[in-house]
This record gives sequence, structure tokens and C-alpha cells, in this order.
Amino acid sequence: MDGNAAQGINFYTRKWVRPEDLNANGTLFGGSLLRWIDEEAAIYAIIQLGNHRVVTKFISEINFESSARQGDLIEMGLVATDFGRTSLTMRAQVRNMITRKTILSIERIVFVNLDEYGQASPHGYTSITYDRDRMPTSRPGED
Amino acid sequence: MDGNAAQGINFYTRKWVRPEDLNANGTLFGGSLLRWIDEEAAIYAIIQLGNHRVVTKFISEINFESSARQGDLIEMGLVATDFGRTSLTMRAQVRNMITRKTILSIERIVFVNLDEYGQASPHGYTSITYDRDRMPTSRPGED
Amino acid sequence: MDGNAAQGINFYTRKWVRPEDLNANGTLFGGSLLRWIDEEAAIYAIIQLGNHRVVTKFISEINFESSARQGDLIEMGLVATDFGRTSLTMRAQVRNMITRKTILSIERIVFVNLDEYGQASPHGYTSITYDRDRMPTSRPGED
Amino acid sequence: MDGNAAQGINFYTRKWVRPEDLNANGTLFGGSLLRWIDEEAAIYAIIQLGNHRVVTKFISEINFESSARQGDLIEMGLVATDFGRTSLTMRAQVRNMITRKTILSIERIVFVNLDEYGQASPHGYTSITYDRDRMPTSRPGED
Amino acid sequence: MDGNAAQGINFYTRKWVRPEDLNANGTLFGGSLLRWIDEEAAIYAIIQLGNHRVVTKFISEINFESSARQGDLIEMGLVATDFGRTSLTMRAQVRNMITRKTILSIERIVFVNLDEYGQASPHGYTSITYDRDRMPTSRPGED
Amino acid sequence: MDGNAAQGINFYTRKWVRPEDLNANGTLFGGSLLRWIDEEAAIYAIIQLGNHRVVTKFISEINFESSARQGDLIEMGLVATDFGRTSLTMRAQVRNMITRKTILSIERIVFVNLDEYGQASPHGYTSITYDRDRMPTSRPGED
Repeated sequence: MDGNAAQGINFYTRKWVRPEDLNANGTLFGGSLLRWIDEEAAIYAIIQLGNHRVVTKFISEINFESSARQGDLIEMGLVATDFGRTSLTMRAQVRNMITRKTILSIERIVFVNLDEYGQASPHGYTSITYDRDRMPTSRPGED
Repeated sequence: MDGNAAQGINFYTRKWVRPEDLNANGTLFGGSLLRWIDEEAAIYAIIQLGNHRVVTKFISEINFESSARQGDLIEMGLVATDFGRTSLTMRAQVRNMITRKTILSIERIVFVNLDEYGQASPHGYTSITYDRDRMPTSRPGED
Repeated sequence: MDGNAAQGINFYTRKWVRPEDLNANGTLFGGSLLRWIDEEAAIYAIIQLGNHRVVTKFISEINFESSARQGDLIEMGLVATDFGRTSLTMRAQVRNMITRKTILSIERIVFVNLDEYGQASPHGYTSITYDRDRMPTSRPGED
Repeated sequence: MDGNAAQGINFYTRKWVRPEDLNANGTLFGGSLLRWIDEEAAIYAIIQLGNHRVVTKFISEINFESSARQGDLIEMGLVATDFGRTSLTMRAQVRNMITRKTILSIERIVFVNLDEYGQASPHGYTSITYDRDRMPTSRPGED
Repeated sequence: MDGNAAQGINFYTRKWVRPEDLNANGTLFGGSLLRWIDEEAAIYAIIQLGNHRVVTKFISEINFESSARQGDLIEMGLVATDFGRTSLTMRAQVRNMITRKTILSIERIVFVNLDEYGQASPHGYTSITYDRDRMPTSRPGED
Repeated sequence: MDGNAAQGINFYTRKWVRPEDLNANGTLFGGSLLRWIDEEAAIYAIIQLGNHRVVTKFISEINFESSARQGDLIEMGLVATDFGRTSLTMRAQVRNMITRKTILSIERIVFVNLDEYGQASPHGYTSITYDRDRMPTSRPGED
């Protein structure tokens, strides 16, 4: 299933597990991990939807399959799996580059596209871009 | 449903949303939220299982129902819902004390009780304690 | 005195001492502790005064009675002891849930209620609320 | 009184108030301030006592006289005022370099000198050094 | 030159500029940027040299060509340019994905390969790997 | 060369290396170091140019001569070496107070003076001030 889960996923952001990321047991703090994957999903959604105003709406169940220790290298991967009218669904995987094991997989992370008033808004896309043609060129507050 | 979700839950830890907790949209960063609830669940599990060596094993789906802004007060609540042989299942809720809205509910957060070698280990409990009779009296590395 | 100090105090927020909270001796960094208690006092004051615009004005002497180590659980408690015209005085206590010892007690933390121009302003309250009837319903900048 | 308070104090460490140091009102978070002064006092004590194993034991009352905003420069000053057998007492002051105002003064911060077992231990000094002849040359755990 | 600088560089880790990354002017804090690129270079070096024990030895001059604001997406890229006996030299570039501008380029970041005693040690490699065949399989302290 | 590098440099800000500042090898994380020196240079530039709106423009090559460990005390020093029309050039040095060794020296850190529109702007100074007569008295956004 590990192989399947990774299908189509591109791994970009990497983390080097440092002392500040450890829980009191000396293993990677789950909260750090969730924080990292949520940030990575936000970045992925912004690039796909061409809009800064995206928020996490739903995360499907998370199975913590293995952990990491100080000095381990972590990589985070995502792939868009569904474009709704105002939403984007992604599949995510976090891997330990040292142990080669999957740390966790998330089948569905759903982000919603917002307009300038913070309301769900159609994004107009139906498929993944591998270019950066949708990248927003302004910032929140400037448009 | 909000009322139901909170049934039996005790709310302890509170957060004051500060600039460092915001995402680029000026609302509460989902990653901060997940980090807070994971830490709170770890504390709850340690008290119930009388053991520091607990790790997040599973988080059921998370619905982000509402958000929070700078200056909002957040409270986090948990209740144990099932004691397995080596695991503890909790239900969690995060509420915005200002808007009175539920921010998110999680039906099942499962922690596993570990022995000193990091292996799943029976914890011997079958019900919630409201006292602190199970509180560990030593620290990791001392026992 | 430990028993007296805790009289009437409600303990809410809890912390799990992680590596990032330690000083170079491996014990809980005093600065982290002071940061935590100040944030908790701000939250308590906001709930009692129904106003976000509260600032720390005075902290009476602090006796560091015991410490904490990585993996310890800390709980912070406060109780309002005096309502001035524009101020609120609280008594605070921080306890180590593992060692059962008081970490520190503070007899008086005084917060001041501010108006929208940052000036001290009467808050109109003379006693503790145990409900949330005073909770502000707007945020800084919205009222 | 501001002038008196600063008598004999040397100001070293400076901070530039950034967004992560603000409370929800947009002014300097009291907790950040307390964290900074405690760290600075620890550094001062290590240099005076020639020992890494120093811990905060007591802080006399703290009067928050003025505040700071994003972009302000803060400077922290300390002077040893009393050498006990196992303790060192310091006077501290934090100033806003922009407004020229005292932010807070602390008459007595007491640190205790510890031996390798964490017990209070005589330090053998009775006066301030302005050189670095007492600077420890080993680290915790190496001696 | 921007085009040239990027030659052969693979961009992996991305950052979403949040309030905590801003300086007092509201633009990306240079210190955060330097922290990010140093961590990314460490990860790259570990993968190329198959060793956790790598340290920054030298960074050639850094030209801050453009900046970033809250909400911008940043990407960091590196490529190995020289394998010394005990060192690895990399070229680095940080780009703003929103403005499409180079934020900074660094011609040479040199890391040194250390043995278990912290001494410079030959790494035995002379060319870039695009696989992960050199990835360390143990952690610091385990070998 | 160590002696030369320090000529004319005033050392102010000090840091106590805590667990959160360490890399996965247990030595001071280079990224923390770069973050600290950039913040200190910004403070120095603000005081010399009497303007909050200063940004890092250039950093000459950085030689990491020695490192630091948990519990070490670090001090950072700067001296202005050249006043351009819109820029300020500084020399910087970071020293380990425990080992007495230079950690790194930077021959030239260049900051640029900005106007309220973020454009390079003449600062009107040609020499170092040792007083605080140039200190800005307003904050960003207030002038």
C-alpha cells in the first residue's frame, strides 16, 4: 500500500528533525508533523488554485505508521486528487528518508478557495497544473 | 451536534491567539491548531495511563467547522472513550470562547502505551480516572 | 502554605515540558515559565473583564520553589482576588503534576483594563464570574 | 527614580520587537519580556559565578511602567548588588531605546549557584568582576 | 544571470511566509531566510555525503536581490558544484514563487564531512547522486 | 587575525545556547547563528541611521571558524566601517565567551536605508555615533 499511496505524489519540502521538534520521549512530536503537512498542503493548494485565500476544511483519518528521531530527514508529498467547484482535495504522504518508511498517509486533505470576503468561491479549475501558470501574482490585501 | 460532541468533555488548556499563530490570511493557522490538540491529547493520555511513553497512533477525520482570529481565546477539551489493551481512545473538541463556535471536533484520537523499549505495552486500565492516582512519579529515562 | 496558596484557584492550562523549554542545565527554563503564566493571566483577565484590551501592570515577588524536567506535566492556576476600578488582581500558582510540588506562587498579578485608546478605563465589575457572561464578543479592532 | 534605578547597570543585550513578540493588542507581550530578562540574568550570573549551573530562585516585584511596539528597540541591563554564600542578587532594568522610557525595573533577581548534583553550593565570590576571569571553561556535563 | 544561477539547481523545500517570519518593516526577516537556506543545505549535504555529521564551514557572499512579504511562497534550490576530499561545495538560490524574482543567490556554501569525533573526514565521493543510495541508514549516536 | 577583526567592535547582545538552538549533531545550528547576527546588525543600523526602515542588502563571505555547544555563551559585536549615500557597511564578529574563540567574522554586512515607499534613500550620515542622538523617535507606520 505504501507504493500505491505514493502514486503520482511529488515530494518537495524536506525537514531535518532537530531537538525543538521532539516530544518528551525523544521521538518526533506528532504536533510538529501535523503542522508541517498542513503548511505544505496550503502551499500546494495556492499553486493549484492561483489564490492565497485557501483554508483547511477537512482532513481524513491519519494513521501514524512509523516515527522519526533527531537527525532524521523527512520529506512531504502531495497530489491533487479532486477539483470541486470551490474545493481542492489532495492526498498526502510523509516519509522518513533515513528509514525509508512511510510516517503517515492522509487520503484526503480538503482546502476551500475563498473570495476577498472570506466566503467559499468557485476556483474554475478541473485538473492539476504542473506549470506555474496559475500562481497568484498579488498578495492578500493587494487585490 | 455541537452539544453532543462536547458531552463528558472537560476543557482545560486555553490559548490566546497571537500573531505568531496566524496564517498568511490572518486567520488561525491550521497547523498551530493541530499542534495544540496533539499536545493536549498527549497530556490527557499520560494522566490516564500513568505513563510518559505514549505516542499518537491514529486521528480520525477532522472537520474544520469555524476558525479564529488574533485575540480570540481557544479552549481544548478531551474525554477518554475507550481503553484498549495497549491503547487509549479519546474524543476531542476545540472551541472558540469568543464566537462560542466549535472550531473542530475529532471523534477518535488513539494513543498507544509504550514500554521502555518503545514497544506497545498493556496499560492495565479500563476506565477513566478523575483523580491523579495514575500520574507517573518518575520521568522518561529514570525508570 | 502550599495548601493556602491554592485556595480557590482553578487550574486550567497544562504544559508538557519539551526540549525547547529547557535551559542549558536541562531543567525548565524560568523564562518559559514566566511566559506561560503571563499568557494564562491575560486569558483569565479577559474572561473576567469582558475586554481584550488588558495589559500586565504589576507582578508581586516570585519564589521559585521547585523546578521541572523534560517530560513533566505543568498546570497553571489563577483566582481573582481583587477588583479595582480599572484593575484586576489575581493570585497565581504553577504546579508540577508529576512531583506534586508547587513550582511557584505569585500573590498578586495586576492587569489593567484599557479603552480603545490604550488608556486605563473602568471595567465596572466587583466580583468573579464563573460563567462566561462577560466574554467579549468582538475582537480588538472591530469595536 | 529612573536615573537611580540605572545606577551602575551595564546594558548589553538588545532586542528588535518583531511580530512574534506581540500580544493580541499589538503591544509587546509581557511574557516575551520576562523570558528575555530571565535569560539575560542567567548569562550575567554565569559570568559572575564562573559556573553554568545557576537557577532563578527569586524575583522581587515587577512594575510594568511602559510598553513597546513593533519595531521598537529594547535593551536589558543588570548589575550584581549582593553576593550571598550560594547566591547572587542582581538589579535589572529594561528600557525602550526609542521612547527612552523604562519598561520595567526589578530590584532583586536572585540566582543560586548549584553543584553537579543540583544542590546549592558556595561560589566563593564577594564582589563583581568586570573582567572575564571567572568565565567557566567547561560545559555542563563535561566537568 | 538569474537564469545561469539556477542552472542544474533542483528546488525542493518551500515556505509560506507567515507573520512570525517578518521583520519590523513587514518584509521577510533576513535572518529567517538565512536560517532556512542553511537547513536546506545541511539536508542536501547529508544526502550527497551519506553522513549526518556535516557542518557549515563557509558561505560566499550573499546578495539580497529582492524580498518577500506575508503570504508569498518561497522556494529553495541547491546543486553540488564541487566534491573536495572532506568537503562538499554547493550553489544555492532562493526564489519568490509569487514575484518570480530571485531573492538571493549564494555561489558557494561549503559543508565539511565529520567523523564521530567531530574531525574532518574523507567522504569518498566525487560526483552528485540523483538517487538515494548514499542516504545514511543510522542516526548520530547509533553508529 | 582574531585580534584585528575585533578592532573597534563593541560587543552587546549575548545568547545562552539552549536545546532549541542545536542542530542534529548537538552543536550550534548555523541557521540560528545567522539569524542572530542579522538581527543584531539591523539594530546597529537603526541606531546609526536613525531610521527603522533598513534592510540587509549584502553579506560578504562567512568563515565558520569554530562552533558552540549547549550551555555556551555567545556574544555578537559590530562596528560601522563605511557610510555610503544610502547604505551602511558594518564589520561583524561572533565570539564564544566560554572557549574564547571566534565563531565567525564577517568583513562587510551592508544595510540600505529606505524611505516610506521602500526605496533606497540618502541617510545623511558620514560617521559613527556613540551617543543615541540619531535614535528614531517614531515607529514604522507612524511617520
